[in-house]
Amino acid sequence: MSRKSKGISAERQLLHMFWDTGKWIALRAPASGAIKYPCPDLLVGNLERKLAIECKKTKSAKQYLKKEEIEQLIEFSKIFGAEPWIAVSFDRLGWYFLNTEDLQKAGNNFVISIPLAKRKGLLFEELIECGGRDSNPSRH
Amino acid sequence: MSRKSKGISAERQLLHMFWDTGKWIALRAPASGAIKYPCPDLLVGNLERKLAIECKKTKSAKQYLKKEEIEQLIEFSKIFGAEPWIAVSFDRLGWYFLNTEDLQKAGNNFVISIPLAKRKGLLFEELIECGGRDSNPSRH
Repeated sequence: MSRKSKGISAERQLLHMFWDTGKWIALRAPASGAIKYPCPDLLVGNLERKLAIECKKTKSAKQYLKKEEIEQLIEFSKIFGAEPWIAVSFDRLGWYFLNTEDLQKAGNNFVISIPLAKRKGLLFEELIECGGRDSNPSRH
Repeated sequence: MSRKSKGISAERQLLHMFWDTGKWIALRAPASGAIKYPCPDLLVGNLERKLAIECKKTKSAKQYLKKEEIEQLIEFSKIFGAEPWIAVSFDRLGWYFLNTEDLQKAGNNFVISIPLAKRKGLLFEELIECGGRDSNPSRH
């Protein structure tokens, strides 16, 4: 699979996970080429919470993220009224969901290592059960 | 323009109108073919309000709407936590925004005539200024 189609496949996987709960609605933003406005990969919501999610799937032990990508996610979330999250899936480990504040600096950009994901990330069930980012149960 | 591209062009027009306010974010849902889940044409939001919008543009004096389309819009809005709206643009009259309760029955389906749009619809500026559907200023 190309990098692009791998990304789309990851987004679709998450999309179905949210829909399958029966309690959340998930939208995949259209291909970025057509739209000049910054949008997260997924926008997910229910009556109480809205989540703006950037999705990453990697075979590597580290997922790098561009500073601009994170800034746009935060900006979008502020205006729309959503919680900004990074969803990262490492091979055979499944999905972890990280707050933007929990990312590690890597020069001008950011990085999520497997140990960081395990320490700071929420599992899918924790993400959808927690009352929002303020009540994010710290997993140190 | 084909019916489909006319619809997309109408959605894009509205998308830009919301972004141009600088206070709203608007997302166009991806082409329905790829996704089996019911989604509105546009999802629009700011910190206080979220709007799920079906967009229609017509050269006719009446815009018909399928019952299923309206039911899906209402269902989506209930789960996501959004206000359901129909945006309809008649030639040379611009956009009117109608509550789903204000649609007129047409057999099993619904219809919006120009007089109904003028009587019950909100203009764009009214829609984005009003405090949500509960404070929808009736225009009888």
